[in-house]
Amino acid sequence: MALRGPLSRLLRSQLGHTCQQSRAQSVAVLGAPFSRGQKRGGVEHGPKVIRDAGLIDRLSGLDYSIHDFGDLNFHYIEKDEPYMDVKFPRTVGAANKMVSGAVSRAVGAGHTLVMLGGDHSLAIGSVAGHAQQCPDLCLIWVDAHADINTPMSSPSGNLHGQPVAFMLKELQDKMPDIPGFSWTKPFLTSRDLVYIGLRDIDPGEHHILKDLGIQYFTMRDVDRLGIQRVMEVALDHLLSRKQRPIHLSFDVDAFDPSLAPATGTPVNGGLTYREGIYITEEIHNTGLLSVMDLVEVNPTLGANPEAVQATALLAVDVIASSLGQTREGARASIDQNPSSTKHSFELCRRRP
Amino acid sequence: MALRGPLSRLLRSQLGHTCQQSRAQSVAVLGAPFSRGQKRGGVEHGPKVIRDAGLIDRLSGLDYSIHDFGDLNFHYIEKDEPYMDVKFPRTVGAANKMVSGAVSRAVGAGHTLVMLGGDHSLAIGSVAGHAQQCPDLCLIWVDAHADINTPMSSPSGNLHGQPVAFMLKELQDKMPDIPGFSWTKPFLTSRDLVYIGLRDIDPGEHHILKDLGIQYFTMRDVDRLGIQRVMEVALDHLLSRKQRPIHLSFDVDAFDPSLAPATGTPVNGGLTYREGIYITEEIHNTGLLSVMDLVEVNPTLGANPEAVQATALLAVDVIASSLGQTREGARASIDQNPSSTKHSFELCRRRP
Amino acid sequence: MALRGPLSRLLRSQLGHTCQQSRAQSVAVLGAPFSRGQKRGGVEHGPKVIRDAGLIDRLSGLDYSIHDFGDLNFHYIEKDEPYMDVKFPRTVGAANKMVSGAVSRAVGAGHTLVMLGGDHSLAIGSVAGHAQQCPDLCLIWVDAHADINTPMSSPSGNLHGQPVAFMLKELQDKMPDIPGFSWTKPFLTSRDLVYIGLRDIDPGEHHILKDLGIQYFTMRDVDRLGIQRVMEVALDHLLSRKQRPIHLSFDVDAFDPSLAPATGTPVNGGLTYREGIYITEEIHNTGLLSVMDLVEVNPTLGANPEAVQATALLAVDVIASSLGQTREGARASIDQNPSSTKHSFELCRRRP
Repeated sequence: MALRGPLSRLLRSQLGHTCQQSRAQSVAVLGAPFSRGQKRGGVEHGPKVIRDAGLIDRLSGLDYSIHDFGDLNFHYIEKDEPYMDVKFPRTVGAANKMVSGAVSRAVGAGHTLVMLGGDHSLAIGSVAGHAQQCPDLCLIWVDAHADINTPMSSPSGNLHGQPVAFMLKELQDKMPDIPGFSWTKPFLTSRDLVYIGLRDIDPGEHHILKDLGIQYFTMRDVDRLGIQRVMEVALDHLLSRKQRPIHLSFDVDAFDPSLAPATGTPVNGGLTYREGIYITEEIHNTGLLSVMDLVEVNPTLGANPEAVQATALLAVDVIASSLGQTREGARASIDQNPSSTKHSFELCRRRP
Repeated sequence: MALRGPLSRLLRSQLGHTCQQSRAQSVAVLGAPFSRGQKRGGVEHGPKVIRDAGLIDRLSGLDYSIHDFGDLNFHYIEKDEPYMDVKFPRTVGAANKMVSGAVSRAVGAGHTLVMLGGDHSLAIGSVAGHAQQCPDLCLIWVDAHADINTPMSSPSGNLHGQPVAFMLKELQDKMPDIPGFSWTKPFLTSRDLVYIGLRDIDPGEHHILKDLGIQYFTMRDVDRLGIQRVMEVALDHLLSRKQRPIHLSFDVDAFDPSLAPATGTPVNGGLTYREGIYITEEIHNTGLLSVMDLVEVNPTLGANPEAVQATALLAVDVIASSLGQTREGARASIDQNPSSTKHSFELCRRRP
Repeated sequence: MALRGPLSRLLRSQLGHTCQQSRAQSVAVLGAPFSRGQKRGGVEHGPKVIRDAGLIDRLSGLDYSIHDFGDLNFHYIEKDEPYMDVKFPRTVGAANKMVSGAVSRAVGAGHTLVMLGGDHSLAIGSVAGHAQQCPDLCLIWVDAHADINTPMSSPSGNLHGQPVAFMLKELQDKMPDIPGFSWTKPFLTSRDLVYIGLRDIDPGEHHILKDLGIQYFTMRDVDRLGIQRVMEVALDHLLSRKQRPIHLSFDVDAFDPSLAPATGTPVNGGLTYREGIYITEEIHNTGLLSVMDLVEVNPTLGANPEAVQATALLAVDVIASSLGQTREGARASIDQNPSSTKHSFELCRRRP
C-alpha cells in the first residue's frame, strides 16, 4: 500500500528538498472543450459548467494555490475524412497533441493537474503528456466503458471509445497508422492500468482485456467484493512494487445515470455517490495523485437544468475529493496526512 | 454450488446427446395478460409494455432462437362469487389451468420459457406446468411479499397473495377445496423453495415460514449478509444435493419503488438495480434456469409515462440478465460458460 | 451485546415485577415545534407533518398504548441578544428547559418517549430530561453533522450545531456561561456517546472528537465497514459493560438528501433508506430504547409537496422501526423478543 504518515513525510524531506521549499502546494486546472471523439455535440461545454458549479472556489477551500490555465483553443481540421471507420482522426489527433503539451508543461512546472473534458478521447493526450514527465506513472480508469477498442474492433468508430488502445505497448502491432497521431507512441504496459466501474464492454474489448490480463473491476465485481476491497486490490496491484505517480481518468458515466444524467453514453447500474467518493478518497490518501481527467459531462444532454447542475456538482465533488476534501473533517485530514497531493514534479523525481 | 465450466460441459455431452444436436438454444416468450388475482386493473397490460420496451430484440441479441408465443386469451367467468374470502376463484383457477398447460407444452418442446404477467397468482399455473415436465424443479421467489397466505390467513382475499400456498405439500391440509383449482395438487416441498427480497410479511405468513422452516431472505438479511452471500446460501440450499431445473418467479415489486414505480403493492426499501441484476446473473450462471415469471408490471399505476417506461425497461433487464446478458462482456460470458441456459427439456432429462 | 430472549425475559420477571404488571407497554409522543436553534423558518412545523403522515396510527398498529401529549407551547423571548456569536440563547435555553421537564415527567411515568422536533438544539433538553430519570443512559446520535461545536468553535453561532457540547462533562471548562442555560449541567461522558452518519464535520468539531476519543462512524466508515458491522461495534461500545437505557437522537438529515429533501442542512452521500431502518431495527432489538428524538424535518424546504411528504413518511418509518416495526413479519418479531421496548422507568430501575 501507499506510504503514509511519518515515513512519507521523511522521504519528502530528503528528496527534492529545494524544490519543496520554493513551491507552494499547487493545483492547476486546464479546460479542454472538445467533442470530436464522439458524435454528440455539447460535451465541449463541460469545462464551463464544471467551473460554473464552483470548482475553483471549492479547491481554494482546500488550501491549495490554484492556477486556472483557462481553456485550450482547439482547431477543427477541415476535410478530416474517416480513416478506416475512425471519425475525425486528424482533428482528434491534433487536439490531443495540444493537450499532451499543456499537461506535460503543467506537470513539469510542479502542478498537480486537473484536466476538464470534453470527451474521453482527450485522455490520449492527457496521459501521454503526463508520461512524458513521469514515465513510470500508473493509470486508474473509472468508467462504465473500457474505451480500449482498436479501430478494427470499434463498433462505432468514435475515438472516445479507443483512447486506451493508443497507450498500451502490447497493442502497438494492432494499431494502424492513424493520421493525426504520429506524434505519440505507446508508453504504458497492461500492468500499469486498472479499470473500475465497467458494465458495458464490447466483445472485442473483452477479448483484449482477457488476452492482456488487465486488472479490471466491473460493477459485478463491486457488487461481489464491495468498493473497499476493490480499492485495496486495485491500489495494491499498481503500487505494491513501488510508489509512483497516479493518473486518474474519471469518466462521469461511471456513476449511475440517476446521479450523472448529463452524459453521452449512460449505462444503468453505476457507482453510487458514496462509492465514487470512496474511490477518490482512497486515491487521495495514497499521496500520489499527479494528474486527473474529469470527462464526458455534456450539459446539452440533461433533461432539465437540474439534471445538468447535479452532474456538474458531482464532477466538482469528485475532483475535490480526489484532492483532499474529506468526510472526516477537512482540516484534520490534511493535518494527519500532510504528504497528500504532492507536486507531480516531485512525485516523478522521487523515483530513483 | 452449481456445476460450472468443464464438468458441466462433460455432463451435457454425455446426457441427452441426440437432443442437443437436434435443437438450437431456444427461448420461448409467453404473455399472460391477467389481473383477477388482485383488485387493481392494468396489470393485464404488463406483457404489452414489456414487449414494447424491446424484450424480443434484446433477447435476440443474446444469440437465442426466440419463439414468441404471443399472449394467452383468458376468459373471465361470470358469476364468480367469492369462496370464503377468496376473490374470483373460478376465473383465477381457469386462467392458471391454461397457463399450466401452455408452460408444460413449451418446456416439453425444449424451450426455456419466459412468462410475462399479469399478476403473481399466475405463478400457480406457471410453476405447476413446469413441474409437470420437471417434477424435481426448485423455486426461487424474488418478491417484496411472501405470497404464501392461505384463504384463512389472507387479510385481503386476493389470490396474488396466495400462490405459494397452492404449491406446497406441507400446506395441503390447510387449503380448502377452492372452486376452480381441482386441476392442480401440491407438488413442492418447503425445502425446494427460497425467497429473496421480502419486507412485508403478513403475520399468518410469518407463522407458515417459520413453521415449515422455509429458507427466506428479507431485505434485512440482504442488509446483513450482502447480496453476494445471500445468493451463495440460496443456491447452495437448493442445489448442493443435486443439480436441478430452476423456476425463477420474479415480482417486479422486489425492486425499490424508486426503480419500479408502476406496480400494485410497492414497499419501500427494496432491491437496488445492481442487486436485482446480481441475483439474475447468479441464477444464469448455474446454467439451470428453465422457466421464469416476470410479473406485476402495471402500466396504469405509473405516475407518468417515464415511470412506466422505467419499470418496463427494468423488467427487460431482469429477463435479459437471467438469460445471459452480462456486465462483463456479453459474448465472452457465453464463451466461458456455454452450458448456460440449456433446454428445459434437457435439464429435466439430465436427472437420473 | 445487548441481552436478548430468555435471559432478558428472566431479568425482567425478577426486576420491577409489580411495575410491569400494573402498566401496559406505553409510548408517549411529544411535539416540540421550535426553530430558534437555527436560522431557517419552518422546522417548527415538523411535529405537525410527521403526525399528518400517520405516526399515531402506525404506532398503534404495533400494539402499544399510545399517549399523544400534543405539542409544547414555547415562548420566544424578546430582546434575546446574541451572546458571543450564539443566536437566541435565552429563547433556546428556556425552550430546552421546558422540553427537559416534559421528557423527565414522561419517562418517570413509565413511557417510552418520542420527541418530535423542531431543530436539533432541542436535544439539549430531551437528553437532559431523560438523564434526570436515567443518569446512566447512553446516547446514539444519527446525523450528517456532529453538532458538538462550542460557542467558540461554531462557524455559524446556531445552537442546533452545538447541543452535544452542552452535555459532555469533558467540555465543561470550554463552555461559557450562556444566558438561558443555568438550569442544566453536563451529565454525559464521551464514552457514553456514539455518532453514526457523519459527513460534514467542522474543523473545531474534528478536534474535539479526536481529543476526547469519541466513537464516531462517518459515511466513509459505513462504506468501509458496512452498516451491519457499524451497529455491532456501536452497540458493543455502549452496552458491553452494562445494559442501560438508550437515547436515540435521530436527525433526518442523516439520510441522503434524495430521501429526506425537506431539511435545513442536507449533505450528499447520506444513509440509504435500508441503512437507516437497519440502525433503528438494531436499536429496537436491544430492548433498551427509552427516549428518541426525530428532528429537523422542515416542510417549508421541500421543493414540492411530494418532497415534504416523502421526508415526513421517512420520519414515521424511522420512529416505527425504532419501536418494533419489522421487515421480518411484524407480530412475530414481538413474539420472539417480548422484552423489546420496555418502559423507560423500568429500564432505569433495573440497574442496581
